[in-house]
Amino acid sequence: MTGHTEPHAQGRGAAHGHRTVQEHRARLAELLAPLAQRPAEERSLDAALGAALAADLVAPVSLPPFDNSQMDGFAVRSADFRGDVGARGGDLGAKGGDLGAKGGDLGAKGGDLGATGGDLGREFTVVAAIAAGDVPAPLQPGQAAPIMTGALLPEGADAVVPIEWAVPSRFPEPGATVALPAVEPGTYVRRAGSDVAAGAVVLPAGTPIGARQVGLAAALGFTALSVRAPLRVLVISTGAELAPDGEPLGPGQIYDANGWLLSSALREDGLEAENAVSRSDDPASLRHELAEAARAAEEGRLDLVITTGGVSKGAFEATKLALDEHDVEFSHLAMQPGGPQGLGSFEGLPVVAFPGNPVSCWISWEVLLRPVLAEVVGAPRCRRRLTARLAAPLDSPHGKLQVRRASLRQDGSVALVGGPGSHLLGALAVSDALVLVPEDVTDLAAGADVEVWLT
Amino acid sequence: MTGHTEPHAQGRGAAHGHRTVQEHRARLAELLAPLAQRPAEERSLDAALGAALAADLVAPVSLPPFDNSQMDGFAVRSADFRGDVGARGGDLGAKGGDLGAKGGDLGAKGGDLGATGGDLGREFTVVAAIAAGDVPAPLQPGQAAPIMTGALLPEGADAVVPIEWAVPSRFPEPGATVALPAVEPGTYVRRAGSDVAAGAVVLPAGTPIGARQVGLAAALGFTALSVRAPLRVLVISTGAELAPDGEPLGPGQIYDANGWLLSSALREDGLEAENAVSRSDDPASLRHELAEAARAAEEGRLDLVITTGGVSKGAFEATKLALDEHDVEFSHLAMQPGGPQGLGSFEGLPVVAFPGNPVSCWISWEVLLRPVLAEVVGAPRCRRRLTARLAAPLDSPHGKLQVRRASLRQDGSVALVGGPGSHLLGALAVSDALVLVPEDVTDLAAGADVEVWLT
Repeated sequence: MTGHTEPHAQGRGAAHGHRTVQEHRARLAELLAPLAQRPAEERSLDAALGAALAADLVAPVSLPPFDNSQMDGFAVRSADFRGDVGARGGDLGAKGGDLGAKGGDLGAKGGDLGATGGDLGREFTVVAAIAAGDVPAPLQPGQAAPIMTGALLPEGADAVVPIEWAVPSRFPEPGATVALPAVEPGTYVRRAGSDVAAGAVVLPAGTPIGARQVGLAAALGFTALSVRAPLRVLVISTGAELAPDGEPLGPGQIYDANGWLLSSALREDGLEAENAVSRSDDPASLRHELAEAARAAEEGRLDLVITTGGVSKGAFEATKLALDEHDVEFSHLAMQPGGPQGLGSFEGLPVVAFPGNPVSCWISWEVLLRPVLAEVVGAPRCRRRLTARLAAPLDSPHGKLQVRRASLRQDGSVALVGGPGSHLLGALAVSDALVLVPEDVTDLAAGADVEVWLT
Repeated sequence: MTGHTEPHAQGRGAAHGHRTVQEHRARLAELLAPLAQRPAEERSLDAALGAALAADLVAPVSLPPFDNSQMDGFAVRSADFRGDVGARGGDLGAKGGDLGAKGGDLGAKGGDLGATGGDLGREFTVVAAIAAGDVPAPLQPGQAAPIMTGALLPEGADAVVPIEWAVPSRFPEPGATVALPAVEPGTYVRRAGSDVAAGAVVLPAGTPIGARQVGLAAALGFTALSVRAPLRVLVISTGAELAPDGEPLGPGQIYDANGWLLSSALREDGLEAENAVSRSDDPASLRHELAEAARAAEEGRLDLVITTGGVSKGAFEATKLALDEHDVEFSHLAMQPGGPQGLGSFEGLPVVAFPGNPVSCWISWEVLLRPVLAEVVGAPRCRRRLTARLAAPLDSPHGKLQVRRASLRQDGSVALVGGPGSHLLGALAVSDALVLVPEDVTDLAAGADVEVWLT
């Protein structure tokens, strides 16, 4: 079947006897729900980076906190342009000579002034300049105050004329005269609260705190934020084939990639993660590691264990054997790679068991665990998802959600990187996206829309 | 003009007298080029996360390091299926009775066996099982070795028959007999080097090191990586309007957002960043801060200073005044926001001067400095760029690259978030993309393609 793939359409047509990805995510959400109850922590702004907000962030002040100038220019009372000159007749009369003396300038700038609305405007008496941070005196009718970007608008002023429109177009000394074109009330004024109103929820609880969120919080005067403490995760790679770090490979041995891959992925997303290796196929070895981890959890030092390997249908599945008597269930998902999965708890500690191939681990993290943690705990954040055109055709097994490594190209199309094999770590390392092909889709033509997750 | 916007098309039609974004990036690249010469550091895998590779990463071993099984199943010599029974006549004869005894089983599974190619296969003598990590004995003709996923293929074996295809479909004891369908050489075998060949450059110098790169390096046996040491950056926010952190705002005062926004952005990208505030409009104050920073740079503790504010056309531009006598040039770019910019050096320390509005700072970082550092130093990484459809029409000033905050939607279209104002920090904090509208484009219709940078 060739067709459009709908986002999240991973629930249809799962292979017989296989659990769907949605079902598995629901079980994970159930298992991990208590992690949402962990107490919040107060963290300084720099330490909050990468965590998630524990509560709605409510603006204690408005942004901007006061009416201020958007430009370097002159603060004016716009009513001064609208002919209510009666009140200021004396002023105008007193400046008749000045106006005449500047006639040449005004004429020379006529084009500029005209461009602002055809109104040649009028002259103003320049008063003291207002820098950002100054507390200016009230502005009287007929006065124009040089004002800098961000400076508090003086009482009485309601508009700013940019310096470029002034004649002369420079800041004169107080007492001098400047000719300004007419402007409407509000021109180049940033109103108090026009960005954020005091009392508004600016970021909801659970929002991941990145640089922009820190910037907003700082602007609102926060020096610390209440955050959900990052999860502390232990990744245990299992397998008798795992060579000790840094030693030459013996026959049949490989270096552990899973522990480094997953713990780095968790840490990249603001979680705290360590990795360990259980090198024995004796289930007692893993049980020993898990018992230690359970003690760490009891003492409040650990929230979750992820194991890798030993969950398939082989004759020596150490993880399965180690956890069979515990409250851990193993199942096979309608997903490729990453089909064999386990989840449950070991002496009260949540345990999630991933398969042993590195790409299967990555997909298990990205497609199963990450979205559930994003929803339940608020960190890590979900991957950005979008629909994109396939650069080349693909086929996919019926009844399984196939997840392929890919690269999003600058023209917006998506190209697969490497084959479907779950051992292809080299291709994984140069990919930057995943393509999700739903269970009931077996082939897609070039140009077909597919669901893409940006990694 | 309504039209398609080409990526990187920011060089055309810049407003008169304004420097183009490309020109400015070229000057930045020139200023910062010496930072590429900083010595590399050897870092453990966990400490390397977020840095950039200092040299090409060359595979010291192949991946997989040896031929291994892709499935739980039976390792076989595929020639055993191809009728060259002469050499094994004795074996076959000796097993005639076994074959007969299993006739019922074979018949019952005929459909399964047929599904693998119509060849009913033959019987094998089961030998000792091979777990991952085992060093197996050579496989003799007529033998089948139970083999687990990832285990080293025994000498002589060239294919694996999945356990699901076997009759019976379970792992028997050594000495038992199993019937297997015929398979081609290479079936379910992962060849040594099929992922990565020893000696190949798997990641080029400059590659940012994320979780997948750490995973690949670990799989190749690296316990440490040679990385470019992260830049150390000091962000100095300037302005007499900046209230001390944590104190109530006085009239005309604001809290510093720029320092927190930029230092967090730098840290999110793996750089080391601190932020400071220069609250005086007296240029001597900033010069004092910069002199201290220059000393830190001389002592090898600092690489770069970013200042914010004080670079516009106002009457009190402290940054401009502080740096005028130094080797720092100020210019106005054909970009909105973020037009006023400065760059140069202060007593040998590179200084980049951003404007004072928070959104202008963000855009200056994202559009000017980040791409240059990505190119020159290799970290931070460039933002992902793509072409997407506008969700709604927009207009843009002629002669300026306009950079709008936006959000990429799941259908692949992009919607603007907030207005063009450079003070709109609330909207910035909920955006996740930038839309770049080239200088010569003044309006775009809904559905038009635009250049999008994912932030």
